[in-house]
Amino acid sequence: MSAHVELSRLSLNQATTQNWGMAETIEGCARAGVGWIGLWRHKVSELGLAETARRLSGAGIQVSSLCRGGFFPAASAEVRQQRIDENLRAVDEAVELGAPVLVLVCGPSPDRDLDAARRMVEDGIYKVLPYALDRGLRLAIEPLHPMYAGDRSVVVTLAQANAMAERIASPGVGVAVDVYHVWWDPDVYLEIARAGRNIVGFHVSDWLVPPPDHLLGRGMLGDGVIELRRLRQAVDAAGYGGPIEVEIFNQQIWDTPGEQVLALVKERFLSEVL
Amino acid sequence: MSAHVELSRLSLNQATTQNWGMAETIEGCARAGVGWIGLWRHKVSELGLAETARRLSGAGIQVSSLCRGGFFPAASAEVRQQRIDENLRAVDEAVELGAPVLVLVCGPSPDRDLDAARRMVEDGIYKVLPYALDRGLRLAIEPLHPMYAGDRSVVVTLAQANAMAERIASPGVGVAVDVYHVWWDPDVYLEIARAGRNIVGFHVSDWLVPPPDHLLGRGMLGDGVIELRRLRQAVDAAGYGGPIEVEIFNQQIWDTPGEQVLALVKERFLSEVL
Repeated sequence: MSAHVELSRLSLNQATTQNWGMAETIEGCARAGVGWIGLWRHKVSELGLAETARRLSGAGIQVSSLCRGGFFPAASAEVRQQRIDENLRAVDEAVELGAPVLVLVCGPSPDRDLDAARRMVEDGIYKVLPYALDRGLRLAIEPLHPMYAGDRSVVVTLAQANAMAERIASPGVGVAVDVYHVWWDPDVYLEIARAGRNIVGFHVSDWLVPPPDHLLGRGMLGDGVIELRRLRQAVDAAGYGGPIEVEIFNQQIWDTPGEQVLALVKERFLSEVL
Repeated sequence: MSAHVELSRLSLNQATTQNWGMAETIEGCARAGVGWIGLWRHKVSELGLAETARRLSGAGIQVSSLCRGGFFPAASAEVRQQRIDENLRAVDEAVELGAPVLVLVCGPSPDRDLDAARRMVEDGIYKVLPYALDRGLRLAIEPLHPMYAGDRSVVVTLAQANAMAERIASPGVGVAVDVYHVWWDPDVYLEIARAGRNIVGFHVSDWLVPPPDHLLGRGMLGDGVIELRRLRQAVDAAGYGGPIEVEIFNQQIWDTPGEQVLALVKERFLSEVL
């Protein structure tokens, strides 16, 4: 295969080039021949929905997903409803941007009751689902690494996300597999196979040893210990053939010019992931 | 129950009072009426085995466990054998100290092959087991939090530790349940029940939000989000009736005088764990 074909699944999640604005990200990807972008709502708001969509289309770039919905658990019914409303707005934005998938970071518990928070997540998804289904959008339950169980997500394993997606059993709900969040799991290959066609997103980065930071410690592809190729092959074997988002939260990478980051991402995507 | 009876299961893991030497720890526990200590090998070496054992006995303090054996995976057979030899020495030390349990921190992988590293752990335990069994010592497989999968332990869930203990199926091997490592797991109550009589140690601390540090970020009982009482009740219901070690790696707590730490540990043990 030519590098062009091989890079055809590469998507730049714009969290990787945090210091690029929305316009720069589109221009940078166009120059680098990267045909997909994973968008974040706060970045999109820089240009607005219509203008972002127009520029993406003009550059021939597709949207792999929009980050993020979720954050369902809250202490009161009123706040939980506000979170649902926010998710409905995120659905609208995803649709206007042409994103096929809205990634859900499910949210932490408002107190010590993990079981209740997990029920709130599932309830929240049920409430957003009809609205998403009507618009042809898929919601991706993304299990986060268990080190985020207290501050980001009570959904922490692929088994848990799979079970939730299976209970909901709708074409509007799938799971996102992010290697950084699931690589450590003794059941990860089993659960990827189980997820099968429910996989609606695949994200790559690397796990540095030791981890330099709680939130900004992800590594460039190949700089850490994750079996990237094996995981990519497993996801492919499960039936996923869509874009692969490179999503690296790392201060050092953020401080590097976007052009350089994207060049290295392309190189490492070929050598470490494919 | 009187506070005396209620505190009868409290064990101070000496990692909690890192700035106390071995002698101070024994004296401090004796003054505070704490009847158990969880020992660390490097602390024991300050006084030596015989003298530490003599002072513990003189103070009427029992040893709940010795930390730590393990670190089985290594790149070469030679180094793996050195690790086994080190574990045999740890067994000898545990026996001389009267510790009923040697806690195993299983070790990280020497490369990207997690499966192979996990096999090395199990092989290592099989090699140490006869020596421990002959001496009436139990080895405790301690699953560590998945955030330590790269630098401390390829054993990261209670399900994984349980499966390993069940395969080995020996009275000389059990599991240690540390709430800090397992609290996030959607299957934790199921796996505690499954572990049953294989539970040979129970450790408590708390999970702070957000976590202040990779290694030294554990919280004082009650300062975080872990359902401590519920987990203690589950472990009790599974059949564990032994000492409960308070093990808190936290720089701020280390910088606090040991007397104060121990007083607070006693108070919080009563209000948060029992």
